[in-house]
Amino acid sequence: MNLQDATALLDRTPSTFDALLRGLPESWTSRHEGAGTWAPTEIVAHLIHAERTDWMTRARMILEAGETATFAPFVRDGQVQEMQGKSLEGLLDEFAHVRAASLAALQQLNLHPEDLQRRGRHPALGSVTLSQLLATWVVHDLTHVHQVSRVMANQYREEVGPWSGYLGVLQCAGHSS
Amino acid sequence: MNLQDATALLDRTPSTFDALLRGLPESWTSRHEGAGTWAPTEIVAHLIHAERTDWMTRARMILEAGETATFAPFVRDGQVQEMQGKSLEGLLDEFAHVRAASLAALQQLNLHPEDLQRRGRHPALGSVTLSQLLATWVVHDLTHVHQVSRVMANQYREEVGPWSGYLGVLQCAGHSS
Repeated sequence: MNLQDATALLDRTPSTFDALLRGLPESWTSRHEGAGTWAPTEIVAHLIHAERTDWMTRARMILEAGETATFAPFVRDGQVQEMQGKSLEGLLDEFAHVRAASLAALQQLNLHPEDLQRRGRHPALGSVTLSQLLATWVVHDLTHVHQVSRVMANQYREEVGPWSGYLGVLQCAGHSS
Repeated sequence: MNLQDATALLDRTPSTFDALLRGLPESWTSRHEGAGTWAPTEIVAHLIHAERTDWMTRARMILEAGETATFAPFVRDGQVQEMQGKSLEGLLDEFAHVRAASLAALQQLNLHPEDLQRRGRHPALGSVTLSQLLATWVVHDLTHVHQVSRVMANQYREEVGPWSGYLGVLQCAGHSS
């Protein structure tokens, strides 16, 4: 985990979702894969919720309290409140805003390589390092890029006819929930 | 399959790859998942190759020859030639250019709903409709968004430590090849 490479990717995620989703017909952005699954709009709201409550909050706890404090559990339906009364366009703007603020705060921490090995306590996983938290932030972004492509592809599952077997995303078992 | 919805998505794919990949360190863009798999740069080259040889070429064949002609098989390593001597940035520009040209050509066909049911012949799958071809074009884009997120996430497989089980993209079996 190299902090510069990690932040290069984190920096691009809001624009990636923006390019993929802004202005798309609602038939793409508001349909999910079935009861209890997320449409693209909910995925963006979930990313905002994680930005507000998870990454930098936990990074600061590691630096300030180490393993003497335990992270608050992540609220898995936090996107429901986050979405209330907001358009997808508003959510995309908000994600860009909160992500930029997180990355500015991360830079202000002026982390040294040895800081990345400092440890905190996860409520379920136990002892974790700051390096693992930051790598997870990156892979969490990619998990949701992966998920949103699958959710949208699912709408054309029948429409592709006999090509279905050639299209990897249609074979995805939905491990991104 | 609604032509307007399909083209809305096809129109955004070059910007999505651009937002995700342009300017990223090469450690993200040139690493793959092992021998015989594709790095992000190769995935963009593959999308260009498909754009040149597959979608609109086949659509025109359906309209002009119907089932009396068989599509040329798609060359699965066509990205190798497509990449020769080009930077990722050049490939991203080229993908945007060839995709815009394809969509302009598609619009010029001025397709009517009944045209979408016209049939052509695929060398392996047999009889297919224009509608299925266009839906496949869309899902093929999404398959490669899905793949590129997985290829990049794979680099932090160890780095996320105990969070690995929570991150859907790391459970993906690589069905996008």
